[in-house]
Amino acid sequence: MPSSQHRDFNPADLSDHQLSELIGKTTDKIQHLRARDFPPGAVGPEVDRLNILRLEQLQREADTRRVSQRNAPLDRSVLETVLLKRFFYSPSFAIYGGVAGLYDYGPPGCGVQSNLLALWRQHFVIEEDMLEVDCTNLTPHDVFKTSGHVDRFLDYMVRDSDASKPGIFRVDHLIKAVLKERLEEDEKLRKLAQPSQPHADGKKVKKEAKPKFTILEPEVKADYERTLDTLDNLDQNGFKEVLRKFDIRAPDTGNPVTDPEEFNLMFVTQIGPTGALRGYLRPETAQGHFVNFKRLLEFNNQQLPFASASVGKSFRNEIAPRQGLLRVREFTMAEIEHFVDPADKSHPKFKLVKDVRLPLFPRDRQMDGREPIHMTIGEAVAQRIVDNETLGYFVARIGLFLHKIGIDPGRLRFRQHMANEMAHYATDCWDAEILTSYGWIECVGCADRSAYDLTQHSRRTNERLTVQVSLPEPLTRERLVLERNKPRFGPTFKKDAKAVEGYLDSLLDDSCDSAANLGGKDKKDTEKIWDESKLKDLQDRLESGGGKVSVTGTDGKTYELTNDIIKIFKITEKINVREFIPNVIEPSFGIGRILYSLMEHSFYNRQGGDEARNVLAFPVVIAPYKCLVTPISSNELFDPFVDQCSKELRRFNLPIKVDTSSTAIGRRYARNDELGTPFAVTIDFQTVKDGTVTLRERDSLKQIRDTVPVVCGLVADLVAERTTFHQLLLEYPEFVTQDLS
Amino acid sequence: MPSSQHRDFNPADLSDHQLSELIGKTTDKIQHLRARDFPPGAVGPEVDRLNILRLEQLQREADTRRVSQRNAPLDRSVLETVLLKRFFYSPSFAIYGGVAGLYDYGPPGCGVQSNLLALWRQHFVIEEDMLEVDCTNLTPHDVFKTSGHVDRFLDYMVRDSDASKPGIFRVDHLIKAVLKERLEEDEKLRKLAQPSQPHADGKKVKKEAKPKFTILEPEVKADYERTLDTLDNLDQNGFKEVLRKFDIRAPDTGNPVTDPEEFNLMFVTQIGPTGALRGYLRPETAQGHFVNFKRLLEFNNQQLPFASASVGKSFRNEIAPRQGLLRVREFTMAEIEHFVDPADKSHPKFKLVKDVRLPLFPRDRQMDGREPIHMTIGEAVAQRIVDNETLGYFVARIGLFLHKIGIDPGRLRFRQHMANEMAHYATDCWDAEILTSYGWIECVGCADRSAYDLTQHSRRTNERLTVQVSLPEPLTRERLVLERNKPRFGPTFKKDAKAVEGYLDSLLDDSCDSAANLGGKDKKDTEKIWDESKLKDLQDRLESGGGKVSVTGTDGKTYELTNDIIKIFKITEKINVREFIPNVIEPSFGIGRILYSLMEHSFYNRQGGDEARNVLAFPVVIAPYKCLVTPISSNELFDPFVDQCSKELRRFNLPIKVDTSSTAIGRRYARNDELGTPFAVTIDFQTVKDGTVTLRERDSLKQIRDTVPVVCGLVADLVAERTTFHQLLLEYPEFVTQDLS
Repeated sequence: MPSSQHRDFNPADLSDHQLSELIGKTTDKIQHLRARDFPPGAVGPEVDRLNILRLEQLQREADTRRVSQRNAPLDRSVLETVLLKRFFYSPSFAIYGGVAGLYDYGPPGCGVQSNLLALWRQHFVIEEDMLEVDCTNLTPHDVFKTSGHVDRFLDYMVRDSDASKPGIFRVDHLIKAVLKERLEEDEKLRKLAQPSQPHADGKKVKKEAKPKFTILEPEVKADYERTLDTLDNLDQNGFKEVLRKFDIRAPDTGNPVTDPEEFNLMFVTQIGPTGALRGYLRPETAQGHFVNFKRLLEFNNQQLPFASASVGKSFRNEIAPRQGLLRVREFTMAEIEHFVDPADKSHPKFKLVKDVRLPLFPRDRQMDGREPIHMTIGEAVAQRIVDNETLGYFVARIGLFLHKIGIDPGRLRFRQHMANEMAHYATDCWDAEILTSYGWIECVGCADRSAYDLTQHSRRTNERLTVQVSLPEPLTRERLVLERNKPRFGPTFKKDAKAVEGYLDSLLDDSCDSAANLGGKDKKDTEKIWDESKLKDLQDRLESGGGKVSVTGTDGKTYELTNDIIKIFKITEKINVREFIPNVIEPSFGIGRILYSLMEHSFYNRQGGDEARNVLAFPVVIAPYKCLVTPISSNELFDPFVDQCSKELRRFNLPIKVDTSSTAIGRRYARNDELGTPFAVTIDFQTVKDGTVTLRERDSLKQIRDTVPVVCGLVADLVAERTTFHQLLLEYPEFVTQDLS
Repeated sequence: MPSSQHRDFNPADLSDHQLSELIGKTTDKIQHLRARDFPPGAVGPEVDRLNILRLEQLQREADTRRVSQRNAPLDRSVLETVLLKRFFYSPSFAIYGGVAGLYDYGPPGCGVQSNLLALWRQHFVIEEDMLEVDCTNLTPHDVFKTSGHVDRFLDYMVRDSDASKPGIFRVDHLIKAVLKERLEEDEKLRKLAQPSQPHADGKKVKKEAKPKFTILEPEVKADYERTLDTLDNLDQNGFKEVLRKFDIRAPDTGNPVTDPEEFNLMFVTQIGPTGALRGYLRPETAQGHFVNFKRLLEFNNQQLPFASASVGKSFRNEIAPRQGLLRVREFTMAEIEHFVDPADKSHPKFKLVKDVRLPLFPRDRQMDGREPIHMTIGEAVAQRIVDNETLGYFVARIGLFLHKIGIDPGRLRFRQHMANEMAHYATDCWDAEILTSYGWIECVGCADRSAYDLTQHSRRTNERLTVQVSLPEPLTRERLVLERNKPRFGPTFKKDAKAVEGYLDSLLDDSCDSAANLGGKDKKDTEKIWDESKLKDLQDRLESGGGKVSVTGTDGKTYELTNDIIKIFKITEKINVREFIPNVIEPSFGIGRILYSLMEHSFYNRQGGDEARNVLAFPVVIAPYKCLVTPISSNELFDPFVDQCSKELRRFNLPIKVDTSSTAIGRRYARNDELGTPFAVTIDFQTVKDGTVTLRERDSLKQIRDTVPVVCGLVADLVAERTTFHQLLLEYPEFVTQDLS
């Protein structure tokens, strides 16, 4: 809607009818004034007014078209045929029979992907001064052992008990599919059991196919439903019990299935020729940021907050890939790790987004079966629905990004993870979910990973992945410390000293937020931060034992500590610096999923007349080709003009498509509608006479006409968003009939 | 040099002295005219003249500075320290001790890389309408079996014979290192053996360290040299012989080494949960293009020539990675596969590059020990030094690209591969080699892969990866065919029919260029293309045998063919369509190697005065940050101006660096010189008074001054190459002293 520019009316307030009437009146008035030779000063304001009204009308037309297109049901098979035919993507190694879960992008798919990523870099990295990193896919075992992926990044699978059958299933998917089928069949049976009633018009209801199941006992039904609700909570044994209790079998063969086995989703390989260095292909880019944290902090002059960002491939060896681009084994991710002081998660730019209104779907609403709630992110943070400003800032910025690339705001929601579904590292998580023909799909995760990863890597490597902040004024604090009498400690315990030291280490403060003990191998005992209550307890036992106490070493043996060997006492210290492990807020984008959702949201079938065909209505910034250049026929008279247009457009660095094939012009337009090309420059016989060409817009099908250099300049302006086609239609007469003579 | 613009003089022809004199005279003249109130019409041309002269002078100064910088010897350790300190890159997983051959790029490294790739896409993909593809890294075994990589993409390695020692060596590197050392020691010994002569100034030559070797027999020395020259020709046995003959041992331990083992350089993994599908990480992106050939051809409306292009990671499990970014295990490649009719390798745009002059190093010059020759690519193709226009076109375009990104033309050459060093698929290859402190490094390969890959994939998959071209008029040709008497063939040979058919298949024309037999499982015998001489031979034997001939089946057994079962005869056919397998010209860019070379070529140490420091003089288009925004001190008076500048610059989508740290301004400039930031906007006390800021250029250290919006606009113009800083120095007075009051 045009913003009010000191006008005496707001066209947005007019009804469609009023608008149309006012346009008619204003046109008449202008003609009247012109006919009487009124000076431009008098006519000008009326022309401005008319233009504003016509722009409003054009935008309403476009909105109506968009809404009706979007509401049309999507025929996914038609869309998939178009995407394959136009080589947006294709199953990889198709001529070798393909590999499940691997897809290649062809030229238009690459174009969409790289435009999407360029916009992502602009919207996040450049706009926010993020620090981009490009880390390796190959990652040594130790890193993923530390991050928890070796032990916990797994699914459970079962096999057909007949080993000769190929069936391998992800156990949660199998249970879900089988129980859902049984519940659906139960529903059908219950309906059948009711006496069938003739319709009002006397026709009988069509009899449903006879189901293969019997009606479920009420408690069994309830058990199925409870199991489905809590499936995400099950462990290996839990799955096994469910399989056996409900006699869940392989769908194709009816055979029982084996017990659930752990299957780690990381691809394994060997790095180097020795066979001694196990490596994985990363399942996320995040660890690369974390292991580089020290260098990043240094690059940012030791200042928090800052964010790193990375775009790259990740790999997950899915047990059974499905749903096309939505669950694949190799995919492009764009990840941001925003490092922030856990004591201050405010965001300096939050005020810029606080009025962004989004559909939020918090936990309680999911539990109660309510709908998402539309509210501004400012309200959401104020009400602690979203935990803090930084998390809220990113949720809002993600929403703005998805709108900008062409995701339908009506098919977007932000859903908070339930406690049981969060990854092992997350403390809170909001997913941007997009509605597609496959249902609501998680496309962007926005997780608070707290200090989990940096803490783990710090402990494992003994590197202090911490931030030090000078306090505005020094603090004084008292605390208990333990000090060994070093000259006696070693000789007393000799080879057992390690085991006793291990016991002492267990008295340290090991909370995640306490950074002070990290990298502390060389620290003095009194510099270490000890757990107050544990020391107090030991001190009490020492006293009550008359200066002696028995403790258990890490070797399980019992040792005696005495007042000669350790001392526990209070110290008073001045603190000038606060040291902490930053928390991490992680917006993580699945580019392939966003790309596929965008295809669905952009797709419509143009109704009516000769123009009935499929269109991918990408925003200009996303369209892989910005402009088609094509002659009205393959007459070679047109060749120099095709060359001239191509050169002029390429001068603006625009990716264009030149089509001089001999197929009918309508088919060439259709081909480019399927590629989502927003503009077309057409060379016709009038071009040969006067050097003008037409400029056609994809969705309105409207055309205007001007000389080659002007039209090419207009295309550049349209692509750079310096103007819109609606605006051009105000400045140019619409061009209707192509000169075919 | 400025192009001649209808001027009466060419400043490029003037000597430095003449130029300087003419500038003085012209300045005087202008002052004279102005003093006498001459009209602008009279003064204007003189001002223009002065500007042209000053621009010439400025450019000469810059050139002189560049040449002197470039000729300064590179201290690689200083450069490496800067690159690490500024986090251009860093060994991956450094806090875990690192993994050889893996590197991460930090923010400025990512910036350089993505600018380089954006320029690559512009220069090649957009400019040439190439079809971009993005294929998976994971690749199933069959594809690389077909391409030859499973059997032939390997190096030979040897181990220390003491298995407890870690030494593993690439055998060719080991032999080269050991023999070279022996030859160098021999050289030293020979020198020592000569009576040492006192210098002219009377001082003695410093005595060299006593070598550990004895002088080599002449025939041994010759043998060493011959072996080094022919090392690339050796196979597994050849290496073994050399190892034993010259008693080559592990350098660290002096132990013998094991026999050479094959080591395939591809990383192996398993795809999916079954363990049955072996996969590799691709060692090049090329196969992804080839297996998608049919879709690409269809996308291009079945027309040749066209090129596909891809940017992505590739992986090579190097036995012993070394030389930093030059030999790594995971790297970014940008590859082009240009598909062309083998009968017509002309290129429509060759005329646009024919005058590009390049240093070419063809085979014969390498053999004769001569230098590369500078010639235009037009001459090189005309003289068949470079085989054809398409290969020549890409060689020239590669040269232009490397110049544009800042590679020193004086340290670039195009070297033709010797016959023995080409990859198994190549028929000719020209490498763009860049001179670095490590010597000449292959950075871009430009290979003619002929029809090798498409032929192999066609045969293996039975897909016709061919192009059909309608002939302008039909051809008539006679040829021999073989036809089985099908009703008799099967019953005669029963279960042995396959073996006999196999024999018959061996009579088919199997030359690479013959596409007709591909995908021909369902073809009639007479449609297949047979090898004329083989059929003629069989026909002769049938006749001389009285209608009978004995042949060997693929099972090794002997079978009798008779006139009843096969017939060989001549047919005459009309051909309307020519079908062929395209040839492939492949320019293949190692992005990491180019990036590292660029670092070396951009690096210099600024000499003299307070400004002595390291600079990375990237071209503006490559620089990761285009502009530094910084206040003269950390006075908070400056904060709103810093914000204003950042916002204005970000409006132009420019990656900038804001530095408000409290370090001295000189150190902040130095930091940004090391990042290669070409411009700096500085806010000072004058800014607070009149809203103006200075704009400073990295290499000249010169400054001009104007208001914030104007200066930010100038930065945008500079980045978009709408002006140069030299040009601005003509329009603005140079600003000398910062107001520190």
